[in-house]
Amino acid sequence: MIAGVLVFPGVEELDFAGPWDLLNLWRRIGGGPERCLIVGEFAAPVECANGLSVNPHVSFADCPRLDLLLVPGGQGTRREVDNPVLIEFIRSQAANCRSILSICTGSFLLHRAGLLAGKRATTHWNSLGRLAALRDVTVVQERFVHDGRIWTSAGISAGMDLTLAFIADCAGEETAGKVQFGAEYYPSGIRYGALDTRPEAPAYLKRLSAGS
Amino acid sequence: MIAGVLVFPGVEELDFAGPWDLLNLWRRIGGGPERCLIVGEFAAPVECANGLSVNPHVSFADCPRLDLLLVPGGQGTRREVDNPVLIEFIRSQAANCRSILSICTGSFLLHRAGLLAGKRATTHWNSLGRLAALRDVTVVQERFVHDGRIWTSAGISAGMDLTLAFIADCAGEETAGKVQFGAEYYPSGIRYGALDTRPEAPAYLKRLSAGS
Repeated sequence: MIAGVLVFPGVEELDFAGPWDLLNLWRRIGGGPERCLIVGEFAAPVECANGLSVNPHVSFADCPRLDLLLVPGGQGTRREVDNPVLIEFIRSQAANCRSILSICTGSFLLHRAGLLAGKRATTHWNSLGRLAALRDVTVVQERFVHDGRIWTSAGISAGMDLTLAFIADCAGEETAGKVQFGAEYYPSGIRYGALDTRPEAPAYLKRLSAGS
Repeated sequence: MIAGVLVFPGVEELDFAGPWDLLNLWRRIGGGPERCLIVGEFAAPVECANGLSVNPHVSFADCPRLDLLLVPGGQGTRREVDNPVLIEFIRSQAANCRSILSICTGSFLLHRAGLLAGKRATTHWNSLGRLAALRDVTVVQERFVHDGRIWTSAGISAGMDLTLAFIADCAGEETAGKVQFGAEYYPSGIRYGALDTRPEAPAYLKRLSAGS
């Protein structure tokens, strides 16, 4: 299995770096992807949303056929939805992929590539209304959603929860547990400032807060 | 405030990318660092532990005086503890820093720079014994530890919990809440495969598991 992680100008760093680390821990354990690649439109440095500069392993032109495509989000998605080369890359690779994962506002790129039609999907809480306005997708306010081979997550850090659930689905709970243990992904669960109870908080978070 | 995030060959991606995102969200909200810099020994691409290639903003030679220094971990720390240039960079910058944060096995770099003598500190669960063997540091099995201006965290993903606690300490719970809400850092809390109850699991995790 070859996993490709898309980057573009203005991609949010944690959107891809969290899943990247977990997918590679899975690779190192064995049974996961044999190769994980950072894929950019060009083989040139990409400046992320917060200024981190990363070097893609392959350009779109040189990218092998992927089995797994991960599409992160970030401010840059607002421009990239209108980049026909990037959208066509997602569309053509997705045609062959076993699974397509998006994080945060990466779901807008999947939508533009025609991958969310008739699907249940989610995005960052601040973009839920904007996604719902696209109409041909059923927006759910969950931490992550799995509809067929399409997985979408809530904002930024939710990509890690999505990736672990994806690994559990592919390789079983024991393997997902090894990845989780390796990454020591057992968050404290502290919620600061009670912002999680705001009206604009997504439904899954309100449930979490109500239950705690 | 200028924040510097150290990178070196074999640095674990999520160790720095999680805190990087949260520090920059704080910067964007206001009241946090005015500048966040990725700092490498040389102004050349750095290959991380899982193969991500990043470009430092500044080399050690060109790095301004930092107010906050974040030292991530990863396999590369086993070599970098013997890199006198890197250790001297940490030591000399730390002399002026308000706060020094380490993630995962970054604590071994702080130790070598003389910053953990007589302090309480932690690291990735798999390196707790190795850190304790250094003797002049008191190893605690917490998700993160704060001792004076030195903050250290458990493995990989724990850097995000540390960074939010650090922001709350500096700027208050409301600001930390805004950063947490922005990053949508409300993890699902799912624990896969019951690995969290293994004998080698750190004490904080056994407590978490016993309580759930």
